[in-house]
Amino acid sequence: MSSPVPHPWQPLRDRLEAFWAERAPEADGAHDLHHLRRVWRNARAIAATEPGVDLAVLVAAAYLHDLVNPPKDDPERSAASRLSAAQAEPILAGMGLEPERAAAAAHAIEAHSFSAGIEPRTLEARILQDADRLEALGAIGLARCFYTGGKLGSALWAPEDPLGLTGRTLDDRRYAVDHFPAKLLRLQDGMRTAEGWRLAEARTRLLRAFLEQLALELGE
Amino acid sequence: MSSPVPHPWQPLRDRLEAFWAERAPEADGAHDLHHLRRVWRNARAIAATEPGVDLAVLVAAAYLHDLVNPPKDDPERSAASRLSAAQAEPILAGMGLEPERAAAAAHAIEAHSFSAGIEPRTLEARILQDADRLEALGAIGLARCFYTGGKLGSALWAPEDPLGLTGRTLDDRRYAVDHFPAKLLRLQDGMRTAEGWRLAEARTRLLRAFLEQLALELGE
Repeated sequence: MSSPVPHPWQPLRDRLEAFWAERAPEADGAHDLHHLRRVWRNARAIAATEPGVDLAVLVAAAYLHDLVNPPKDDPERSAASRLSAAQAEPILAGMGLEPERAAAAAHAIEAHSFSAGIEPRTLEARILQDADRLEALGAIGLARCFYTGGKLGSALWAPEDPLGLTGRTLDDRRYAVDHFPAKLLRLQDGMRTAEGWRLAEARTRLLRAFLEQLALELGE
Repeated sequence: MSSPVPHPWQPLRDRLEAFWAERAPEADGAHDLHHLRRVWRNARAIAATEPGVDLAVLVAAAYLHDLVNPPKDDPERSAASRLSAAQAEPILAGMGLEPERAAAAAHAIEAHSFSAGIEPRTLEARILQDADRLEALGAIGLARCFYTGGKLGSALWAPEDPLGLTGRTLDDRRYAVDHFPAKLLRLQDGMRTAEGWRLAEARTRLLRAFLEQLALELGE
């Protein structure tokens, strides 16, 4: 057996882990260090299907994409990805990452969020966006959606129209289940990579099956 | 077509609806008026399979079973069903329910809860317990479990052992997913009626399928 050779991105990943180990634990269980690690794992799975990915840029962006993370109901929310990108660049420089790579990671971070509306210009930015959006789908996404609803004090669903089938205005701050038609079920169409789209398909199917079962139980 | 004849329990149900309409909205989306209505619907579905159910007792118990509902992390929590029963009896008397039926509803209320540990002595008490426990299972139960986790500020799952398979002590106050092995997956075995057991089986299967998918996504 040959002794394992570390990947070139591993020293940087170790520094990013150490960075988070020194900070106070994140109070939001839907956006903690485990979320960052899962996004990095998703990103690597997608990167494995795309030639020419800079994995140092990708690991940097995955670990720092939620650096500034105001609550979902905070007016600063839509600026969060820009603020995260701006703060990430000097941190990455301090970890020894070359300036052009730190800038590339910052671009991936500012372009990752749904609400920022910034077009991802690089492969790494497209992969980060897909990797983060996968976290909103499937069993993990289901758990996070209701968890966030309870955290924000939303109702579970609109009693007269739980699945939002009547054409009423959706309000996912008020009703947790409105988040499915308002956002989650639309994520797959916006995936930027073929592998991201493929992974999103199975996870979106799980969300639809859940909604069908919920409607049955509610007698809809 | 014949004109619809109201069920004998409907005037009492209308008074119970009016009672809740006059109170401030329940802040806990997992224990609001819609929960009470669903428990009543579950109870009726079970009652349809059991001869001799007193539906007036059952509707009274279903609508008032969470009358006193301290948060899940409140030390008063285990006394909640006894307090609810004690407060329900005079309310039901004020609605014109006969004393022996109000007392029967109070028994069903005090015996319904998992933590009270009171043996249900009547058919109505057994049905209410099953009807309320069905709300903790299936798609509804899944949503309510994570919603409550977010509300209490729990973590989603234990990072090193999300499904609780290592024999560690389960802690569903700390980890939302621990609530599955600690309580939800055990509910079916405690169902008191054949129809409750049958309904619980399908809904428990949904929870197990969710956990399997979650483990896959987490790479467990």
